[in-house]
Parts: sequence; structure tokens; C-alpha cells
Amino acid sequence: MNKYMLFAIEEARMGIRAGHGGPFGSVIVKGSEVVGRGHNQVILNNDPTCHGEMMAIRDACKRLNTFDLSGCILYTTGEPCPMCFGAILWANIEKVYYGCNVLDTEEIGFRDNKFYNMTDEEKQEFSKCLDREECKKLYQEYMNIDNKKEY
Amino acid sequence: MNKYMLFAIEEARMGIRAGHGGPFGSVIVKGSEVVGRGHNQVILNNDPTCHGEMMAIRDACKRLNTFDLSGCILYTTGEPCPMCFGAILWANIEKVYYGCNVLDTEEIGFRDNKFYNMTDEEKQEFSKCLDREECKKLYQEYMNIDNKKEY
Repeated sequence: MNKYMLFAIEEARMGIRAGHGGPFGSVIVKGSEVVGRGHNQVILNNDPTCHGEMMAIRDACKRLNTFDLSGCILYTTGEPCPMCFGAILWANIEKVYYGCNVLDTEEIGFRDNKFYNMTDEEKQEFSKCLDREECKKLYQEYMNIDNKKEY
Repeated sequence: MNKYMLFAIEEARMGIRAGHGGPFGSVIVKGSEVVGRGHNQVILNNDPTCHGEMMAIRDACKRLNTFDLSGCILYTTGEPCPMCFGAILWANIEKVYYGCNVLDTEEIGFRDNKFYNMTDEEKQEFSKCLDREECKKLYQEYMNIDNKKEY
């Protein structure tokens, strides 16, 4: 099997044996070097954002001192949920290899597939626009700041 | 205007004036109490996961000592990106009110709308299955753990 996927599995296995959270581990590779790793720590940290991919992205960004992981590949034991997939895109990761798919993950009791299958109607019911004009003034203030660092 | 949205705007404004990141602030409310707040700190922390909603969720979870924000409402200056929307679902937040929509956010230079418009084909090209059988053994090991805490 792929050696980086093996590292991701080992990372996840350590996590589940310690009771940190679900069976999800990730490593991030640049060239042939592992630059980030992480496993699910939702239970350990009481933090729903601490998925394996998120932890690995944060680890790699800290080590490389950048928010831009262009040229990096992520290996992860389970297909990324919408949160992690979004984080992967923001981080400019080049490619993802996942082991189990979202249906496998559903079988062991997680809601990723349910989230992917939300309809536009359900999303619009859940999330509503409010005070847009006031918020647009804030956006305009941001646009007027000179020499800001972009991301 | 809504007072919680005003808090979210103030949180965001503090952040952009300090150079922490984009014009995105969030507050989380339970009953009538603000239990979490945060603003974008991608630049400050060199961390692409530090969106305002993520920071507010992490803040609320820390204060309430739980990964479950059932019954909470989130107010945020910009429509959540896919990452933040996913985090909101994992956190069991009940309702979201956003100010500017993703098209407004695109106008000031951010990629949220691009990410929402990725086709299934593009996603499948980007993210590939690998070593599924080995990862399923890991999932099985997780299933065999007795009395684990679920989330």
C-alpha cells in the first residue's frame, strides 16, 4: 500500500486507541517529505472543528509558516467532509487521496454523507440573510484599506 | 439593525483594522447570551482555517465545554463558505443569519462562490480513492471499541 496512506492510518489508529475521536488521520506531503500530520481530536478537545484533515493542515501551516499549501498532497483515511474539503481548497492543496468513502463513513455512524446531500432548499431554510446593507459598509471599509495582505 | 449582527460587524471591524484577515466576524448566541465570538485571523495566524465562524465556534465550545452547540444561533457578516457551513452543521448550530452573500464576498476578492460552484467532475478529479480496504480495517477496529464517546 501507499506509504503515506499507511502513515495516515497509523496516525488515526493512535487517536482511536487514545479515545481522541473517530478513525480519521491525515498526512500532508510536499515533494517526498511529510510536512503535516493530524488525527481527529473532536472528543479530546471538545471541538467539532478538530477533524484529522484540519489538524494536518494547521500542523503543516505552522511548520511551513504559511497559509498557502500549494504543491502539497493530502492523504486521509476517510473522504473529506464538507468542512475539510473547504479547508483543503482554501489551503490550495493540490490533490487529495482518501481511503474510505463517505458511504463507508456513514456506515460507522458519521453524518458526512447527510451533509453532502442537503438540498438547496434545506440550506436556504437554515441560513438567512439579515442586515446586508450594514455588512456591505464593512466590506467597503475593507476594500478601502491600502496595501493589505491578501489570501 | 439586529444587535447581534452589530456585534459581529464590530468584531470584524476590529480584525480588519488590526490586519488580522478579511472582513468577517461572527457571534454565537444561546438564549439571549453571547457565548462565542471570533473574527477572521487567517493572516495573523498563518492558518487558512481561522475564519470568523470557525473562531466563534471554537470559542463557544471552549466556554461551554462541549462540542455540541445545539440551540445556538450564529450571526456572521458574510455568508459561510463550505468549510464554515460544514463546521456549523457538525456543531449542531440551529440557525444562521449572515449579512453579505457569497456574490458580495466574491466582489471583494474571495473564492467562496467559486468553491460552491465546483462541479462533481472537478471534485472527483481532485480527490481520489486509494487503499480503501486497508482503511476499512481501521474503521472496523473503531467499531469494535466498546463504550466509546460518540459525536
